[in-house]
Amino acid sequence: MDETPVNIEMIRAAATRLSGHARRTPLLSSPFLDQIAGRRLFIKPECLQHTGSFKFRGGWSAVSALDPEIRARGVIAFSSGNHAQGVAHAATLHGVPSVIIMPADAPRLKIDNTRALGAEVVLYDRAGEDRDALGARLAQERGLTLIKPFDEPQVIAGQGTCGLEIAAQAAEADVERADVLVCCGGGGLTSGIALALEAEAPGLRARPCEPQGFDDAARSLVSGQRETNATMAGSICDAILTPSPGELTFPIMHRLCGPGLAVSEDEVLHAMALAFLRLKIVVEPGGAVALAAALFHPDEIEGDDVIAVATGGNVDPEVFARALAQFDA
Amino acid sequence: MDETPVNIEMIRAAATRLSGHARRTPLLSSPFLDQIAGRRLFIKPECLQHTGSFKFRGGWSAVSALDPEIRARGVIAFSSGNHAQGVAHAATLHGVPSVIIMPADAPRLKIDNTRALGAEVVLYDRAGEDRDALGARLAQERGLTLIKPFDEPQVIAGQGTCGLEIAAQAAEADVERADVLVCCGGGGLTSGIALALEAEAPGLRARPCEPQGFDDAARSLVSGQRETNATMAGSICDAILTPSPGELTFPIMHRLCGPGLAVSEDEVLHAMALAFLRLKIVVEPGGAVALAAALFHPDEIEGDDVIAVATGGNVDPEVFARALAQFDA
Repeated sequence: MDETPVNIEMIRAAATRLSGHARRTPLLSSPFLDQIAGRRLFIKPECLQHTGSFKFRGGWSAVSALDPEIRARGVIAFSSGNHAQGVAHAATLHGVPSVIIMPADAPRLKIDNTRALGAEVVLYDRAGEDRDALGARLAQERGLTLIKPFDEPQVIAGQGTCGLEIAAQAAEADVERADVLVCCGGGGLTSGIALALEAEAPGLRARPCEPQGFDDAARSLVSGQRETNATMAGSICDAILTPSPGELTFPIMHRLCGPGLAVSEDEVLHAMALAFLRLKIVVEPGGAVALAAALFHPDEIEGDDVIAVATGGNVDPEVFARALAQFDA
Repeated sequence: MDETPVNIEMIRAAATRLSGHARRTPLLSSPFLDQIAGRRLFIKPECLQHTGSFKFRGGWSAVSALDPEIRARGVIAFSSGNHAQGVAHAATLHGVPSVIIMPADAPRLKIDNTRALGAEVVLYDRAGEDRDALGARLAQERGLTLIKPFDEPQVIAGQGTCGLEIAAQAAEADVERADVLVCCGGGGLTSGIALALEAEAPGLRARPCEPQGFDDAARSLVSGQRETNATMAGSICDAILTPSPGELTFPIMHRLCGPGLAVSEDEVLHAMALAFLRLKIVVEPGGAVALAAALFHPDEIEGDDVIAVATGGNVDPEVFARALAQFDA
């Protein structure tokens, strides 16, 4: 067990470093949602976290764990989404530079937001440029430390702090046994939460939730090895699309997680509309996958209680308005 | 001072009764909003409270303060909005009946929601029926206790618990001096917060915020007597439209509050869009008035920090989508 790259002590240490910097998000509920889910349903709204997603936890954890001299030279990340904003904001709050490498065709709003959070955004041409080579050259030239989005022990430890909070908040709500549904991309959050629950709330079990057709984590848990999605295009749940579970995250998930769940795009949009109506929170498609599973796949869930993590809220107004119009309750 | 119908001890007692039942809403912030406001801006999102507004606090406080035998006979309220849902939910959780009197032309969704929260909804004809006589008859026949929306000491005490939380959360954020902007209808929340701040955070000052043209509280604070709005129709901020400040709430506000602020309807819709984009919360028009004042009236505010209460989130999807479309950032 000493070889495990992430353990509960690292998660607890990350929680200490995050204290006073990351938000302790509340645990929400609504009798209307309980009725749909057919059991008590609790929602952990990480959309209310700084930068609008749980990614700030991992970003802060990784940046704060660096040796100060190394950190002072700055960090670098590849991301056009929530990881970019989490790392940029964490670096800026530490007073160190950050470089975020994004495709040149990324949405203007995401580029602008990441710049406004203090990062230097370097754009590359998806068709003609080698992203990894570009990043490696910049990292080498400037002495930047790469912060990977999920296959990085201190990032997993940071995301695991969400699991520590869930364990404590479930106990306050008298929830002893429950599935904890987590929107899953590379598995950083899912594996971090699974480790935290193993130590702090063994009656709670993490389960990855994915869009139908992009259920690499669920299929990997079944086969016992890292499976790959057939395609990376064609889902509105862009925030959680990854080719396969991570090298570090999958063994943790395989050891600790329950079976994965997969939901349809309509279920995701419906869950977003219900989160608007009943919880007054803004959830992005990729962040609504676990809530959709809790609401619309009751037969695949065990027990009287279920907890769903709403992982992020960075959604375009047009997509959000579409969800409201399509599922006006 | 012994004649004061509400005091800090009643607010502290209400907090004890609310503990474990009402939600302790977090204090949110965004560097993007700080930039617009020109100072540090903190948002207290009472839209995340049970039933989607701070009204649950007052409802729970009033119902829980009743003598058990009297409470068992049930409660009654006049409301087509947030007060109705707050009282209905609080009564149901106490296991006692509630009767809510609403105009027959109230939105179907509000009627359905209030029923779903366990209330018996009694509809009356705005044109031909006397609402108060109907309520008095029902109360007498069934022994129901009337829970008024703001001019009721235990309701004010319940709303004041929001002020206790603001005082504690401001101290955690190292905010010692700041205006606390509160969306103001009859003044129950504003006066309750003002009393809590007087005792717990004397450097914080409550200030009522209203829609332009419906600024009865602001004008009353100037004249020193309860002024009345010229009309009750024509604002999207329906949740906070009242003819004038309350008999109990105004003297408290007059003694403790800073000057009122008034905002335009476009500022309200813009604030709703920014709350969506930067905080990932759903705020109704009447609940966005204080945030609009913090963002768009910086010259009327003093100090390096400001706190705005987002009082509710019960907004129709169409109105919300309109705010997003009109102010797509």
